[in-house]
Amino acid sequence: MCLSDSHLNILKDLSGPKGWQDDPREMSAYLTEPRGKYQGKTALVLLPDNTQKVADIVRYCAQHKIAIVPQSGNTGLVGGSIPTLAGDQVLISLKRMNRMRHTDPDNQSMTVEAGCILADVQQRARDIDCIFPLSLAAEGSCMIGGNLSTNAGGVNVLHYGNARNLLLGLEVVLPSGEIWHGLTGLRKDNTGYDLKQLFIGAEGTLGIITAATLKLSPYPHQKQTAFVAVPDPKSAVELLSIARRVSGGCITAFELVPRRGLEMVTHHMPGCRDPLETAYDWYVLLETTSSLNRDLLDLERVMERILEDALKKDLVLDGVIAKNDSESEALWGLREHLSEAQKHEGGSIKHDISVAISTIPEFLLKAADIVEALIPGARPVPFGHLGDGNLHYNVSQPREMAKSDFLERWEDLNRHIHDLVKDFHGSFSAEHGIGRMKTTDMARYKSSVELGMMRRIKAALDPEDIMNPGVILPAEISQEKA
Amino acid sequence: MCLSDSHLNILKDLSGPKGWQDDPREMSAYLTEPRGKYQGKTALVLLPDNTQKVADIVRYCAQHKIAIVPQSGNTGLVGGSIPTLAGDQVLISLKRMNRMRHTDPDNQSMTVEAGCILADVQQRARDIDCIFPLSLAAEGSCMIGGNLSTNAGGVNVLHYGNARNLLLGLEVVLPSGEIWHGLTGLRKDNTGYDLKQLFIGAEGTLGIITAATLKLSPYPHQKQTAFVAVPDPKSAVELLSIARRVSGGCITAFELVPRRGLEMVTHHMPGCRDPLETAYDWYVLLETTSSLNRDLLDLERVMERILEDALKKDLVLDGVIAKNDSESEALWGLREHLSEAQKHEGGSIKHDISVAISTIPEFLLKAADIVEALIPGARPVPFGHLGDGNLHYNVSQPREMAKSDFLERWEDLNRHIHDLVKDFHGSFSAEHGIGRMKTTDMARYKSSVELGMMRRIKAALDPEDIMNPGVILPAEISQEKA
Repeated sequence: MCLSDSHLNILKDLSGPKGWQDDPREMSAYLTEPRGKYQGKTALVLLPDNTQKVADIVRYCAQHKIAIVPQSGNTGLVGGSIPTLAGDQVLISLKRMNRMRHTDPDNQSMTVEAGCILADVQQRARDIDCIFPLSLAAEGSCMIGGNLSTNAGGVNVLHYGNARNLLLGLEVVLPSGEIWHGLTGLRKDNTGYDLKQLFIGAEGTLGIITAATLKLSPYPHQKQTAFVAVPDPKSAVELLSIARRVSGGCITAFELVPRRGLEMVTHHMPGCRDPLETAYDWYVLLETTSSLNRDLLDLERVMERILEDALKKDLVLDGVIAKNDSESEALWGLREHLSEAQKHEGGSIKHDISVAISTIPEFLLKAADIVEALIPGARPVPFGHLGDGNLHYNVSQPREMAKSDFLERWEDLNRHIHDLVKDFHGSFSAEHGIGRMKTTDMARYKSSVELGMMRRIKAALDPEDIMNPGVILPAEISQEKA
Repeated sequence: MCLSDSHLNILKDLSGPKGWQDDPREMSAYLTEPRGKYQGKTALVLLPDNTQKVADIVRYCAQHKIAIVPQSGNTGLVGGSIPTLAGDQVLISLKRMNRMRHTDPDNQSMTVEAGCILADVQQRARDIDCIFPLSLAAEGSCMIGGNLSTNAGGVNVLHYGNARNLLLGLEVVLPSGEIWHGLTGLRKDNTGYDLKQLFIGAEGTLGIITAATLKLSPYPHQKQTAFVAVPDPKSAVELLSIARRVSGGCITAFELVPRRGLEMVTHHMPGCRDPLETAYDWYVLLETTSSLNRDLLDLERVMERILEDALKKDLVLDGVIAKNDSESEALWGLREHLSEAQKHEGGSIKHDISVAISTIPEFLLKAADIVEALIPGARPVPFGHLGDGNLHYNVSQPREMAKSDFLERWEDLNRHIHDLVKDFHGSFSAEHGIGRMKTTDMARYKSSVELGMMRRIKAALDPEDIMNPGVILPAEISQEKA
């Protein structure tokens, strides 16, 4: 179906003055995403500035079976916030819903609207000497509604958990246009099904998150960052166990970096240098943080103890501890520039996988064999959140291969790596979600029992399939009524 | 409908030898609960010893629309594991499914069956120097399936969260008889809706949990327990904020005790004595724990610092720090014997409520006014998990009143206190769940939007309403097809 002028005019009215955009040049920023993999079309971008307007728009769309794509910061990597090319979907941007409604220091919570930028939320928490610990590369532009709708991960999951663990309550506009007033600062509430869980990670397919009550923690004023060489991934896993135990839960980041990745970063990224004199095969970036005063807990001694214990067991070969914030930032740079550095080495085929932490060493061996058998000379650069069992298993092209030839193998390599992940009972999308990119993986790797449950839940809450159709569940699956 | 002999015989066959019980004397233990408030009837208790048998039984029941009541430790307080008196429901006990399937120290996880007793799970974790931190009064007999199905709370929620936060994966027999193989040790998995969240706290209305992969933490070898007098609940809330900040997250328990409760305990419970020389109106039991070695973090100094900071602000009037485990146990006894001690003071009308922590002082003032207006002379004994915003707002009868006259006011007082809780955007069942006891509260306090969503989810997963019908959603609500 096509959107009639009558529909468009009514929707504009519902969204109010300044509440819409239909100039193609102005709309273009909403219709493509950071990596440029997805381009969409729409006749209208709606920009409502309060929850009631969102509800009025959704109710009208439900009555007229108009499909909706919700969008906040539009920083997702899987095309979940981009309409299809059919042009028959309206896009609702939450960016004008950016009020911070309430801060409650004694409850360690704050209530913010979906369009608040993550960095602004972090800063507001910081203003009351607290931390909202969700932290990821896009934090300067991503918005809290999208963070929750995708159950965002990032660099602090090891200690604080995913976005799901940082949430106390939600306000949601349902596919019917009803508003669910689920904002609450409660830590405990066992009155029936925990409805908020449904909307976290649902990527806008079950409703539109308009506001959230977030959980804060005391700000950790102490920090220690170390970058250490380890003999192999197995040693890294054992080092993690020691670090968790010795640090008393102060370990907040534990990132794996392979030699190949470090070389790409030091070679291509200005100002990045190898902090160790000798070359080693594998590295771990680990960080401890604490809100304890230094006279009660000296994190420098904690880090030294972790490394001493690990050295005794030959789990660590060499290492450096940052003496100050700028040294810490330099060490983090080695980790954070990995994706960017890979671009200088030609094409890169990416995976965002997780397995049980204990099985990472075996997974890495088998995955490397698969890559070599499939594309001889291709160079795996597995890196990332080992502490969460989550690796970005990126593979750089063979040096002598044409980039386009290599990138044509994207789906083939994904298939083989994800098949291996399935053998390990792992996840083919640990933190990036499904969007439009991985719906075929859903069909391949999820059991019929799981898909059946998801399909029934989708049909129960969105019987007309108007909420972000085609995202998470392939169109033919979500449209088939359970 | 009634259960025919043919049905009963087939169900016995499906459950196998030793897999059922139909002797009324043997069945009686399954048909009443600890407080004796609920009595049920059934023609058959099934005791399957593996997941496939559970699935076979459920599939047969689904085909023949036979209602099922799942039960594990049968320690719940709201009648959720007791069949109705109609006698047409079969009871499935999970107690024979008590294998610990797998322990994975490097992944800090273990996989256990639903019928494992909580204390045994705690011990298995302890054997590998870890803690499974779920801890509650019934831990010697409650079972992990029920703990998860009711999203159990207990005394360690402040630091470790509810049962929901301690879970990585689930195996569930769905109302169709299909098995969902969702056991996983993954920390991160964003592949569609997080299905396990649905079954946690669903009290067996959406399926039967048969096994779970649980999250462990390093065992905390250090502990400090203090019992302090505070001027009022507002000071207790401020003390909590200080304790959270100063302790660096080591604060694992923060329990409120009123003078009236302390007097009941010291008066009625043998061996319990007031640890302070002077009488004060309010007390807090606080505990810090850590897996850090004492040479790195001395929890005694941390506790002293908390109390010093609080004394400076007149938030603490007096207090005692336990010098050893037996002193710690004595202090905990003052808190743990509160319910028992109240029995010696006649009837007690109970509430299990939560509000935002910051609003507890105001809530307590208003609740006391309501109690006095409604039943002059009745004695509120609000105590419990202030650190979670969760209080057991128990009210002892006036001294001169007949117990039965007082207890007749149960529903009336509940109504008024729960109305107040609603004004505070709180929960009328913070940790005990709904069961059969609080379904009328569901109808009164949940919005039609919330009930509508729950009803649609229930109908989507259990279209024949065979799974624990009448629990959580009132029968007329859950039976009405969405």
